[in-house]
Amino acid sequence: MIIAMKAGATDDQIDHICNRIREFGYTPHVIRGAERTVIAAVGHGDKKEHIESLKSAEGVEDAFPILQPFKLVSREIKPKTAIKIGDVTLGDGGFVVMAGPCSVETREQLMTTAEAVAAAGAKLLRGGAYKPRTSPYDFQGLEENGLKLLAEARERTGLKVITEVVNTADVELVAEYADVLQVGARNMQNFALLKKLGAVRKPVMLKRGLSATIKEFLLSAEYIVSHGNPDVMLCERGIRTFETATRNTLDLAAVPLLNELSHLPVVVDPSHGTGKRSLVRPLARAAVAVGADGLMTEVHPWPEQAWSDGPQSLRPEEFAEMMNEIEPYVGLRKRE
Amino acid sequence: MIIAMKAGATDDQIDHICNRIREFGYTPHVIRGAERTVIAAVGHGDKKEHIESLKSAEGVEDAFPILQPFKLVSREIKPKTAIKIGDVTLGDGGFVVMAGPCSVETREQLMTTAEAVAAAGAKLLRGGAYKPRTSPYDFQGLEENGLKLLAEARERTGLKVITEVVNTADVELVAEYADVLQVGARNMQNFALLKKLGAVRKPVMLKRGLSATIKEFLLSAEYIVSHGNPDVMLCERGIRTFETATRNTLDLAAVPLLNELSHLPVVVDPSHGTGKRSLVRPLARAAVAVGADGLMTEVHPWPEQAWSDGPQSLRPEEFAEMMNEIEPYVGLRKRE
Amino acid sequence: MIIAMKAGATDDQIDHICNRIREFGYTPHVIRGAERTVIAAVGHGDKKEHIESLKSAEGVEDAFPILQPFKLVSREIKPKTAIKIGDVTLGDGGFVVMAGPCSVETREQLMTTAEAVAAAGAKLLRGGAYKPRTSPYDFQGLEENGLKLLAEARERTGLKVITEVVNTADVELVAEYADVLQVGARNMQNFALLKKLGAVRKPVMLKRGLSATIKEFLLSAEYIVSHGNPDVMLCERGIRTFETATRNTLDLAAVPLLNELSHLPVVVDPSHGTGKRSLVRPLARAAVAVGADGLMTEVHPWPEQAWSDGPQSLRPEEFAEMMNEIEPYVGLRKRE
Amino acid sequence: MIIAMKAGATDDQIDHICNRIREFGYTPHVIRGAERTVIAAVGHGDKKEHIESLKSAEGVEDAFPILQPFKLVSREIKPKTAIKIGDVTLGDGGFVVMAGPCSVETREQLMTTAEAVAAAGAKLLRGGAYKPRTSPYDFQGLEENGLKLLAEARERTGLKVITEVVNTADVELVAEYADVLQVGARNMQNFALLKKLGAVRKPVMLKRGLSATIKEFLLSAEYIVSHGNPDVMLCERGIRTFETATRNTLDLAAVPLLNELSHLPVVVDPSHGTGKRSLVRPLARAAVAVGADGLMTEVHPWPEQAWSDGPQSLRPEEFAEMMNEIEPYVGLRKRE
Repeated sequence: MIIAMKAGATDDQIDHICNRIREFGYTPHVIRGAERTVIAAVGHGDKKEHIESLKSAEGVEDAFPILQPFKLVSREIKPKTAIKIGDVTLGDGGFVVMAGPCSVETREQLMTTAEAVAAAGAKLLRGGAYKPRTSPYDFQGLEENGLKLLAEARERTGLKVITEVVNTADVELVAEYADVLQVGARNMQNFALLKKLGAVRKPVMLKRGLSATIKEFLLSAEYIVSHGNPDVMLCERGIRTFETATRNTLDLAAVPLLNELSHLPVVVDPSHGTGKRSLVRPLARAAVAVGADGLMTEVHPWPEQAWSDGPQSLRPEEFAEMMNEIEPYVGLRKRE
Repeated sequence: MIIAMKAGATDDQIDHICNRIREFGYTPHVIRGAERTVIAAVGHGDKKEHIESLKSAEGVEDAFPILQPFKLVSREIKPKTAIKIGDVTLGDGGFVVMAGPCSVETREQLMTTAEAVAAAGAKLLRGGAYKPRTSPYDFQGLEENGLKLLAEARERTGLKVITEVVNTADVELVAEYADVLQVGARNMQNFALLKKLGAVRKPVMLKRGLSATIKEFLLSAEYIVSHGNPDVMLCERGIRTFETATRNTLDLAAVPLLNELSHLPVVVDPSHGTGKRSLVRPLARAAVAVGADGLMTEVHPWPEQAWSDGPQSLRPEEFAEMMNEIEPYVGLRKRE
Repeated sequence: MIIAMKAGATDDQIDHICNRIREFGYTPHVIRGAERTVIAAVGHGDKKEHIESLKSAEGVEDAFPILQPFKLVSREIKPKTAIKIGDVTLGDGGFVVMAGPCSVETREQLMTTAEAVAAAGAKLLRGGAYKPRTSPYDFQGLEENGLKLLAEARERTGLKVITEVVNTADVELVAEYADVLQVGARNMQNFALLKKLGAVRKPVMLKRGLSATIKEFLLSAEYIVSHGNPDVMLCERGIRTFETATRNTLDLAAVPLLNELSHLPVVVDPSHGTGKRSLVRPLARAAVAVGADGLMTEVHPWPEQAWSDGPQSLRPEEFAEMMNEIEPYVGLRKRE
Repeated sequence: MIIAMKAGATDDQIDHICNRIREFGYTPHVIRGAERTVIAAVGHGDKKEHIESLKSAEGVEDAFPILQPFKLVSREIKPKTAIKIGDVTLGDGGFVVMAGPCSVETREQLMTTAEAVAAAGAKLLRGGAYKPRTSPYDFQGLEENGLKLLAEARERTGLKVITEVVNTADVELVAEYADVLQVGARNMQNFALLKKLGAVRKPVMLKRGLSATIKEFLLSAEYIVSHGNPDVMLCERGIRTFETATRNTLDLAAVPLLNELSHLPVVVDPSHGTGKRSLVRPLARAAVAVGADGLMTEVHPWPEQAWSDGPQSLRPEEFAEMMNEIEPYVGLRKRE
């Protein structure tokens, strides 16, 4: 790490920092410039607690790490993780589509959707049984009944099931039914939940928090991996910015950036990323083109009747058109 | 709620919307303008699911609520909630200071801090026993041992104890030891936790999420209150913006705005709000002046030895100076 | 427009609002709900000054427009504007690439770049002769000498020239040399400059401001068009958010959204949008896939010697690879 | 500056960087760690062009400056600048209030306001004669007639005049009439305007841009000072964030931070900072408490008739109450 001293820092202050650096197990290198003295501390890892300690000392202007704080999810470990979900593989160069309603509402709604998305080429069925809703007065999900309907839809269509878990107490139950457990954006830094998911033997899809940096996103993935579960997929679903014309701002540059920094596969969710049905298809094409490993899209047979997220849900026929539309884009990737 | 139709919306589409509005139990009022037709739906509450449904219909440009979505925490219910924490009251026009270390680290650290802040006039001792940390490799807290040390410090100093709970599974345990349970910014939309805290018979301090709007903040408070616990205090602790010169951007306008919208008391945390020791004191003065009911400040006897948040922690003597400094500002409020 | 009255608004206050609405030339419609009275004002345009006036009146909670504030750039006027730049057309369904260095530095640098990008298929040469730089100590551009070099490069290669104008006083001079005048992000709301460009007989490329909403972006375009110049192209070049891993956050959803709202062609700049050479190519592919009409990319023969923006500049051979890479994506669009 | 090499950087790449550093006139110090090599470059100034060049080289992960990029406005030059505006001084420990309408509309409006704010204790009259408006269809200002009315109000009341200049072509004219020239938020990076204001012999108030960092804000001030005009005051007026409940997010922590980094006086504008009349007074108190040198507030005798910014304008009697309210807070500062 690097410690920049204040303009008028004294020799005593500089010595004190060097001693602290040695106590922490690093080797200090003092570089005296005309205007400022800088100290480089070389050693194993740039621990946040060491940086904060040095930042708190007299005469220090700033202290910051050089090394990335994530380890196990880093691209430096391996080039790519391919995650097996039964006979479906995410991260092997192919393109996997997950689709379904925001919430599981009724058997008819779910089965209609599942059959339609399976017919159009989706491999996973999404659907929320536990819903994290901004208002306590909004629909909170069918809970275990929703999970049962998802399992029934899997039986009927062969689709794998991805569904959200919102509470540590529900992890085992959800893991019994789901093929992939999803962590929602609002829980990306629910560290108790992440730790618990480290102990699960099913893949986890981690959605990026509304105001999470790429570094924080990867550190949340690191929680799951370091607690024992290597099968984590990352989902870019838009971040919160000043722009209100779209529900969120879909950060597609995050996809190739995550691919540079990490070996984990990356999925894009253009439904939450835009919040507007008419924008889902162009952004789905862009997600393929930018190099994502998969796509998650909301589909509802009757958006007007949807209990949540109707305005961003595709109708089954629109979803089928989207699948046709992205197919040649997926084809181009294979030739690269 | 208001439904704005698209420029070329047909009569059939307008009729369809009116029928849907009636089905939902509202009365539609159609207003035909030269350029656009607008429909106002009058009735009980502007339910989000109704708005989303109408937004999903053909011919609709946009639909939005007129009424605020929070009820129980609204200022329309009552002017102000005063929360009793033993013999301390928050929200009665006085000014309550909470102080202590970011994390409970050792007995010596905690007792030294507790005695110092009590002597300087703080009424509550803060200190984290369960720490939500961005990296899995950072210190995660002493857990129950930390709670025991907090209880011991209470015995010794008479300070009330406020500490964070990060997991639904820990709520009962933390509630046994703490006088006030804190929900951290990263858990502001951990709805499972909020519901659980609705059943607790102790006050809760809810910190504003890093990217939470005022409306979302109040809806999270509404979760706790609607699940049975009326004693919620709100804490403004800075939001995430593009500015990196401070750790967060402390949104002091939120204080009078929350006071206009809600009856819940409001606390300001200038330590997390700025991330810089030298900025804590001016912002503490501003928090008093802007009309907050209380202040939460991080204090550590030896910031350089702190396991977390050293750079923003005041030393005990700096905290005492801050208390002296804000005293006349508190005095001015009493005269108003 | 819609005026929401406060919960306890009196009949006198409601009457006053209705009178004001009539004075402004609208027709008021009063809708009395159980909890709140809402007034709809129907008429020509929802003028901001009227909205603000009503918002300032007693008893009013909020007032907001229904109609979009832009007129001439609206999609409701016509489906699409195709802009002719000599024999090149932007907005006719094809895909136009603009490339070149951030700044014009030397004859050798510019001619080398121009020949390389022309050979690879670019149609316009970009290069700054007047540079808006954050620090007064950074290179400010070659000014008229830079314009002359651009003209020379056009002679030599047949490329059209696009270059930035930063000051009203320079508009005539820049218009003499350039085929397209560019307004930089930092000047998107330099209204004096926009008005002046309304009088120019050359196309203008307007870059989105760092914190400009889509609505503000279109209103800035409306300035140019309403002052007489219909040939405006919009450029999405990334917005400022909390994320610092990329220089800006490229908002690709803005492209189809602008296409829904406006008839003006849209160009994407992945160089400024990401600030990182390795991210330019994937985002260029995504820009084609999402439906942009063109691309602007920074190219420098020796990025290490660049006086500005080296880290985001492609080398000529990388640019040629990018052109090869996007070609089949452009081909897919033609089939649609 | 510091150059962090990539994990597998070769000796040749490291040597190349060291040679470049020497060419630029710095001395390189190579620090080899277990995981990464870091090179510190010591010398005069950390020039952005050097940093970008090194960032563009092979084997480099990142490069960043240690020194602040602003010089003349830095606190390291002198503790504080006091600016004389006739017999009024800003930055000498006192507190100066500037007030008046958003726009100069009519003689009656301006004279009524000027007399009222002078009577209540304001020292400067604000009022826009040239208005930078988001929409071309909004009122653009009375231009020179507005300036003449401001001069007349100065004659009548003794108030000094502050007014905005939006175009380089108008600088001389505005400088003839105004005592202080204001640069609006949207022009904070209109560098042509800043350079021109460097040649003016009148003080300049520079408003912070909507998405400007503190560093960029100070660099814009540096433009004016380095072009010859030392009398620059900074104005914090709120930044753009995701929060829409207030017009902007007033960043009061910027005030003590600017006081740490720079010797220029700092003014707070709670009218634009909040956009809501009811929030202006509490934020005005907070601005005094946090250590600002002055305040700018919008006042209009009849906010409902205002041509702009009515909802955030105080009525004269409200302004007088605000002045009474802040007086004891100003008194507290004198005792410190």
